Amino acid sequence: MNLDQASTKPHELLAAHLDAKMKAVDTLIHDRMMSKHAPRIPEVTAHLVDAGGKRLRPMLTLAAAELCGYTGAYDVHLAGTVEFIHTATLLHDDVVDESAQRRGRPTANLLWDNKSSVLVGDYLFSRAFQLMVEPGSLRVLDILSNAAATIAEGEVLQLTAAQDLRTDESIYLQVVRGKTAALFSAATEVGGVIAGAHEAEINALHAYGDALGIAFQIVDDLLDYQGDSKATGKNVGDDFRERKLTLPVIKAVAKANEEERAFWSRTIEKGRQEDGDLEHALALLHKHNALDATRRDALDWAEKAKQAMAELPDHPLRELLIDLADYVVARIN
Amino acid sequence: MNLDQASTKPHELLAAHLDAKMKAVDTLIHDRMMSKHAPRIPEVTAHLVDAGGKRLRPMLTLAAAELCGYTGAYDVHLAGTVEFIHTATLLHDDVVDESAQRRGRPTANLLWDNKSSVLVGDYLFSRAFQLMVEPGSLRVLDILSNAAATIAEGEVLQLTAAQDLRTDESIYLQVVRGKTAALFSAATEVGGVIAGAHEAEINALHAYGDALGIAFQIVDDLLDYQGDSKATGKNVGDDFRERKLTLPVIKAVAKANEEERAFWSRTIEKGRQEDGDLEHALALLHKHNALDATRRDALDWAEKAKQAMAELPDHPLRELLIDLADYVVARIN
Repeated sequence: MNLDQASTKPHELLAAHLDAKMKAVDTLIHDRMMSKHAPRIPEVTAHLVDAGGKRLRPMLTLAAAELCGYTGAYDVHLAGTVEFIHTATLLHDDVVDESAQRRGRPTANLLWDNKSSVLVGDYLFSRAFQLMVEPGSLRVLDILSNAAATIAEGEVLQLTAAQDLRTDESIYLQVVRGKTAALFSAATEVGGVIAGAHEAEINALHAYGDALGIAFQIVDDLLDYQGDSKATGKNVGDDFRERKLTLPVIKAVAKANEEERAFWSRTIEKGRQEDGDLEHALALLHKHNALDATRRDALDWAEKAKQAMAELPDHPLRELLIDLADYVVARIN
Repeated sequence: MNLDQASTKPHELLAAHLDAKMKAVDTLIHDRMMSKHAPRIPEVTAHLVDAGGKRLRPMLTLAAAELCGYTGAYDVHLAGTVEFIHTATLLHDDVVDESAQRRGRPTANLLWDNKSSVLVGDYLFSRAFQLMVEPGSLRVLDILSNAAATIAEGEVLQLTAAQDLRTDESIYLQVVRGKTAALFSAATEVGGVIAGAHEAEINALHAYGDALGIAFQIVDDLLDYQGDSKATGKNVGDDFRERKLTLPVIKAVAKANEEERAFWSRTIEKGRQEDGDLEHALALLHKHNALDATRRDALDWAEKAKQAMAELPDHPLRELLIDLADYVVARIN
């Protein structure tokens, strides 16, 4: 990271660089989330869309397209598609996880009901597909529909894998690729495709998004055990209480003795948690250096993301994307 | 209906005519519902797919394509797409309606959980989009992605309209077009499009599917109040108990005096139902001839479906589709 950029966050610099296009994306999103007949749809969608997410995924698409020389208008459609898929996923995730909070506000399933979250999510998925058809690129359609299937598959896999101590790092990686990295890599890849980039560049954009998404999710899972709740907005131990087997615990389970295994089985698999269990879990994570090892994995993935950028042309956006990979892991480094 | 066909049901004759193609659709569906990583997906999907639905929607696509002279293989992809969208919709509907039974078996949300139904539904939606991309027709993609959005919009509209006495026949029609007719009309229309049919034929196929779907749904809603539960598999009064404002009640509400309006408001809007309310509701439907008027509407839509077929070429499948329109309303005539 350059020293003169250290004072401003890379995603904010990206947002500034892409400002005009991001405004067009925002207009498109608000335009397409309307429904002539069902006012419940824009109500629920606006609750999430206007809650102030970072819009990282649509920015990845716009950045990838501009970086590869795209000068048309369809990058906005694809960025909107990516954000609609993401929003639909969040609506359904909150139903699946029975969440009460998202982006610091009550979730839609709490404010309205599960029915609205399921059906408005379906509507946004459909809107995403309508949007992605408009640029008329079958290759783009292929990439984005494959990503949608990978996302759903990862979420279903997580249902069964999250509370099963046999879940190992390779299964964890499949889940993470599904729930997070598939949309990151599709977002960057389609930017290259509509720009007509070389295959090597398109592959590199995919590799960047994939590695960035994996690093992003590992950081999220690590902060759940060592984060500062004021800075991250997450409470330490949420994943433990929700019995989600994430990378730190998977690493500790792999090194567990018989007694420790029984502890993880009781707390995660059987969900019988008592006072003091979170503290004991944290002690086991420290004993086996599971948090350090998890942090190293996140740094490795961020490094892979940066290396992938070597294939792309020299461009201010390339530097911003490289800085973004550093920034994603800066919170744990 | 020809006398020599009266002994066999048109959808069975259609199935017999389309047997080889329908076998290919079945193989494709089983192939594409697999998941390398998440075995929960084929388990949940098979529960629904193998429960023995009539597969009316994929047959409509195959019939429309053959009727317009299509000789390629992509009709199978589109028929599979249509069935995947339908199956995904059923999975989500059962969550939204909190249903316990579907096709005479416990629902997936009961056998597994709501999470699995939501996420496997999302997976099947994504698979549908992957499948529809394969034939490489942007027009087909446009039709099917629009249908998916109309379906979701209709379902959301139903959420708010179903328990609101201000819901009139035009809103009912919008809901029915969404929840039922949009997929019927897309199914027939895409068959004509991949066959390269004339615009007038494509429009006629759309009009046929639209009218057939509306007739189909009105019959369903009518049988809920006057059906023979042995023959229909539905219990009389389910919609009333679930406080769903369907066409018969909408017609009775439109003619209600003050006292009757208060009855509908208490039972449907407020959901405070007592013993004897269903009997009183049925008495009001009879008093205002609401069931007769609903039946006439269904017959009118079936007639519109048959008339649309006049634009299509003379072909045994055209006769079968005309007979199918009669058959859909035969249960109430």
